[in-house]
Amino acid sequence: MKYNIDDLPEDIANCPIYKTMELFQGKWTVWVLFELNKNGTVRFGDLRKSIPNISNTMLASTLKDLEERGLVERIQYNEIPPRVEYTATEKAKDLHIVFEAMAVWGQKHGTIGG
Amino acid sequence: MKYNIDDLPEDIANCPIYKTMELFQGKWTVWVLFELNKNGTVRFGDLRKSIPNISNTMLASTLKDLEERGLVERIQYNEIPPRVEYTATEKAKDLHIVFEAMAVWGQKHGTIGG
Repeated sequence: MKYNIDDLPEDIANCPIYKTMELFQGKWTVWVLFELNKNGTVRFGDLRKSIPNISNTMLASTLKDLEERGLVERIQYNEIPPRVEYTATEKAKDLHIVFEAMAVWGQKHGTIGG
Repeated sequence: MKYNIDDLPEDIANCPIYKTMELFQGKWTVWVLFELNKNGTVRFGDLRKSIPNISNTMLASTLKDLEERGLVERIQYNEIPPRVEYTATEKAKDLHIVFEAMAVWGQKHGTIGG
């Protein structure tokens, strides 16, 4: 499916690009989504290790936000110690096309100022 | 060209997606790039009108940043009153693929929390 950029509605709030952009406003949101997409189901601690410099608090609040947006599913197992896993939903997995486009652009033009 | 997300290097700093993401960190950067891509060459005042709520200061600093990154070309005409126009470079125009992917995802999943 191709979307012609000239056909976008004038009202920015209804623009599908705007709706996608909202996802990228949080500092860590994209990285968490990217790691979840890459790994499928991940435990909190492993997710934290895979994202440099993210704090427990920031990771927890990013995951909560993504859960509320229907992008992440949180599953808690009643074990001792309790085990909590996070999985990317179909909605999150569909972001692959955005990551791929970013990868193509980044490969060609990634050098800042270049 | 397809980029396999599993092949991405472990070092996030060298990741082409990371390099593209850097573009999206500024609050207004993507909107300015989007408007420039849509319109080709734009005058400062017209650009400002097309982006709701952006201030003169924010637009000027966003354009300066994009110029330094090689994404925007600034042309000043020695007229009275002076006329300044901004054009998207080839590097900026290549972002079309990213905007298109965002539009596809936004059309399918744009409802927040949906």
